[in-house]
Amino acid sequence: MTDTPTTGRALPHPEREEIGLEAVLHALADPMRLRIVRELAAEGVELSCSDFGLPVTKSTTTHHFRVLRESGVIRQVYRGTAKMNALRRDDLDGLFPGLLDSVLAAADRQSLRLGDGAGV
Amino acid sequence: MTDTPTTGRALPHPEREEIGLEAVLHALADPMRLRIVRELAAEGVELSCSDFGLPVTKSTTTHHFRVLRESGVIRQVYRGTAKMNALRRDDLDGLFPGLLDSVLAAADRQSLRLGDGAGV
Repeated sequence: MTDTPTTGRALPHPEREEIGLEAVLHALADPMRLRIVRELAAEGVELSCSDFGLPVTKSTTTHHFRVLRESGVIRQVYRGTAKMNALRRDDLDGLFPGLLDSVLAAADRQSLRLGDGAGV
Repeated sequence: MTDTPTTGRALPHPEREEIGLEAVLHALADPMRLRIVRELAAEGVELSCSDFGLPVTKSTTTHHFRVLRESGVIRQVYRGTAKMNALRRDDLDGLFPGLLDSVLAAADRQSLRLGDGAGV
């Protein structure tokens, strides 16, 4: 999935040591953004923004991905004409061991409990 | 610490099954609220709002405690003339095992890394 070289302008990302816990929690606190993160974690590969089919407008989708990128939760790169997204799992696990996994597990439990079919 | 009987009107709290992951993450995503939660976890007893000495106005302090209560992170009761606060650890651990501990550990690591002296 990462054979296509990156193209175009590079998007700004925080370095690992600039990633803050509060910003990460804020990024994960939104249902749409949590859904994006769960899907990225489940797939384990880069996905384009349009792969998610979120039930919100394109501009809202762009906003959610920007919040995730600026908080350090995901990395976004242009490949060809697509903006591709990947979870920064190594950075998050290095900074906050177990945090991402516990949030993902909590989201799974909540989906099961509510029977909302949002499990990924 | 809980010998004084509760007094006055009861404040509204979500039942355990009404506590949502996104609301909990949002409540924890603020530096002042995270500080309150860390101190409650470290002390392990009820504390009054004024015990925290937060560097914000009284109305902002009240707001932060209300967000924590309404999200299900803390329980607030009146005892005598004081409003007392306790972490809803049993409820949170029951719903989302390991989540609170991983957030507390992440906050400790961040404080150590930044040397901000906010460790509690």
